[in-house]
Amino acid sequence: MTALEPHIEFWFEFASTYSYVGAMRIEEECARAGVPLRWKPFLLGPLFTEQLGIQDSPFNVQPVRGRYMWRDLERLCAKHGIPWKKPAAFPRRSILAARTACALEGDPRQGECIRGLFRANFAEDRDIADPSVVGAVLRACGADAETVLARAGSPEAKAALRANTERARASGIFGAPDCVVGDELFFGQDRIADALAWATSSRPAG
Amino acid sequence: MTALEPHIEFWFEFASTYSYVGAMRIEEECARAGVPLRWKPFLLGPLFTEQLGIQDSPFNVQPVRGRYMWRDLERLCAKHGIPWKKPAAFPRRSILAARTACALEGDPRQGECIRGLFRANFAEDRDIADPSVVGAVLRACGADAETVLARAGSPEAKAALRANTERARASGIFGAPDCVVGDELFFGQDRIADALAWATSSRPAG
Repeated sequence: MTALEPHIEFWFEFASTYSYVGAMRIEEECARAGVPLRWKPFLLGPLFTEQLGIQDSPFNVQPVRGRYMWRDLERLCAKHGIPWKKPAAFPRRSILAARTACALEGDPRQGECIRGLFRANFAEDRDIADPSVVGAVLRACGADAETVLARAGSPEAKAALRANTERARASGIFGAPDCVVGDELFFGQDRIADALAWATSSRPAG
Repeated sequence: MTALEPHIEFWFEFASTYSYVGAMRIEEECARAGVPLRWKPFLLGPLFTEQLGIQDSPFNVQPVRGRYMWRDLERLCAKHGIPWKKPAAFPRRSILAARTACALEGDPRQGECIRGLFRANFAEDRDIADPSVVGAVLRACGADAETVLARAGSPEAKAALRANTERARASGIFGAPDCVVGDELFFGQDRIADALAWATSSRPAG
């Protein structure tokens, strides 16, 4: 892999239903296309507050859109063979999960742990704000839960998540998930194929 | 075609950029899948006012989302081979075009005229609120422009458009375009394939 080789940044929010649908597929689809993947956890809440003036999910603020989303999620999960259980609480507080994903940067288990945390929220209806839930997911993925949770609480992980959220804002992100390829932003789980096509068509020859 | 055979309703707004991308492809994609198509023009403005409390496009109200949309439209049109020219005015007043589409219900030229009106707005930067522009599009499609424009101004066409907008609201529509198959709503031009798959999988055997 050279600096010039195009890769996909997958920007996601653990509280976001459509991020779940994207996160469960992105690593496999990138592998199939031969495009390197970088996981980019961030917090949507600050962007929603800034851009929309709301303190909640737009799917709660706009009930018509919310009703559509819940039905759509059932269909999308069935289509992609992804487990689904409507969570009792939405949106769940995602800051611990996001910091945990930051703490796993560079760890080969990062993708598996991220999917495990998403499944805990959206297939098992568990509270991913609870360190014991996060710890159990980490252990199930073979990670050293205590070490990772300690790193998730470190100033470095907090700063990394803040920096990601800042970069999301600067990149023109307004929802999740997103794929970023170079300067190109693709919003939504249904645009992963477009992002991959962009990455492979901009791949240098040879 | 029997009453039981699934068809797709394509719900669209002439002022909507993503409706343009969908409208240019829907007839061809339905024909390829063997699924009958029904064009459903409606007005998004009243729904935005009711659901969001705004009198403008959300892409103008939310500049971050607007910037993304304009870039995305360039990419989508290039991908699908659809002509594109960013209109000087957005959103354009679409009520005359929508009533014209209603007046063409049952006319074999309906699809061609709808695409012509969309192209006028989004590929030729012409004002589709101007009867002379609408008339020129109708003539270019071989329609009797004077007769169609007279019908577009009739109480019947006005009532048909109001009824469509009412049905859109009752169907849980909050944006455009949408595909409706039976009771299933698919929002967005990027979900046409999902709607077609739904229609063909629910087709009765035999």
